Amino acid sequence: MQIYIGNKNYSSWSMRPWVLLRQFGIPFDEVMVRFDSFDAGSVFKTTLARVTPTGTVPVLVDDGGLAVWDTLAIAEYLAERHPERALWPRDARQRARARSVCAEMHAGFRALRSACPMNIEASLPEVGAQVLAEQPAVQADLDRLVALWSEALADSGGPFLFGTFTIADAYFAPVVSRLRTYALPVPPVVADWMAQVWAAPGVAAWVAEALAERDFLDFEEPYRTAR
Amino acid sequence: MQIYIGNKNYSSWSMRPWVLLRQFGIPFDEVMVRFDSFDAGSVFKTTLARVTPTGTVPVLVDDGGLAVWDTLAIAEYLAERHPERALWPRDARQRARARSVCAEMHAGFRALRSACPMNIEASLPEVGAQVLAEQPAVQADLDRLVALWSEALADSGGPFLFGTFTIADAYFAPVVSRLRTYALPVPPVVADWMAQVWAAPGVAAWVAEALAERDFLDFEEPYRTAR
Ligand SMILES: N[C@@H](CCC(=O)N[C@@H](CS)C(=O)NCC(=O)O)C(=O)O
Ligand SMILES: N[C@@H](CCC(=O)N[C@@H](CS)C(=O)NCC(=O)O)C(=O)O
Repeated sequence: MQIYIGNKNYSSWSMRPWVLLRQFGIPFDEVMVRFDSFDAGSVFKTTLARVTPTGTVPVLVDDGGLAVWDTLAIAEYLAERHPERALWPRDARQRARARSVCAEMHAGFRALRSACPMNIEASLPEVGAQVLAEQPAVQADLDRLVALWSEALADSGGPFLFGTFTIADAYFAPVVSRLRTYALPVPPVVADWMAQVWAAPGVAAWVAEALAERDFLDFEEPYRTAR
Repeated sequence: MQIYIGNKNYSSWSMRPWVLLRQFGIPFDEVMVRFDSFDAGSVFKTTLARVTPTGTVPVLVDDGGLAVWDTLAIAEYLAERHPERALWPRDARQRARARSVCAEMHAGFRALRSACPMNIEASLPEVGAQVLAEQPAVQADLDRLVALWSEALADSGGPFLFGTFTIADAYFAPVVSRLRTYALPVPPVVADWMAQVWAAPGVAAWVAEALAERDFLDFEEPYRTAR
């Protein structure tokens, strides 16, 4: 099984399935397709055109050559292929909630995603403060995230959203990175969970490789001119 | 089991799980929450606040009081609860593809969705022609949809995307409605599938009730001033 991903420092969608695979010890080959640009003639688009109709990462290509694209479909595919590992919570009600928050993440939180793009190695607390002050939609996204996480943690007792690490934690791992980069304020219970996510082996492995990348991409950097 | 929905003429997200339930003969109670407005104090928001943290429809509330929100999570929940009915394709590869296209729909096609909001009873071919001519992103969305549907139909042999009617057809049913309303051009193989979707009992039932609604909502009508 191969998983196509983009730059680890910047590619928030790629991070989710990769973290999941690592965290659950599922073997895979990584194909890193650097973000040279997203233009039609870019190496990125030309390479991806051979495996996915959407031209985006992540893409999973299984051993039979089947391409599964879009993060949530990859997560479901992995959960289904590995019933022995609890990628989703084992309890049906908790699983329904975990799927609700992942689907919400999949289509939502656009204001936060657009104002605070993932940039693992950057530290931009002043940008975060300014964005929160000026863009009520980003504050609303943050409020909803805090409510969602707090409720799940209160319900499960932690340390992860639904007890043990599941797809839901992987789904929010890139958001944890954003909250760190832009130093967005959260209550202690959420800060504790964020620390757990950051320390989880799958997440820590991705972050370490992101920090080692040292590739500065202008079009992913609205707030800096150099590292 | 209750399913909270919005106006049938306008609420594209509500349409998906409702159509699915009807098409597969799964009993449910409908709670229709009219779109008076999406402001904080609206009857819509106040009513939904009692059942979902997101303030959006659709929401499924099961007999134990569990709320499942976000369309894709509802679809997975129903598929899991009814393994005897093939809500997803039974073949694992086809299922992975069906999930890929649904996840793609869940987060994508924003240009088309924004320029051509669902409006089942309206006929706006001139608007459609103008939108396509002026907004390349809408044409790109349409091209991707046509490619996606054509490939699935060629692969399965039809009449539905993955052979029999599945979640994927329900997921695109509101898009079929948009293509009809705005008369967006499609090749014959896609037109044939659209006709099949439109005639499917679950879809036909929703459309009939939408046409009976006769509720004109200004904020859902960028192109008309009256019915
Ligand atoms: N909904 C998609 C989103 C994928 C996505 O947008 N990936 C970005 C990288 S994080 C990408 O490939 N962008 C290329 C482009 O937009 O052209 C998924 O979940 O896989
Ligand atoms: N991703 C959500 C989208 C739901 C959604 O946006 N629903 C619309 C009606 S079609 C809504 O409730 N809008 C209210 C609002 O935006 O405040 C889902 O799939 O359930």
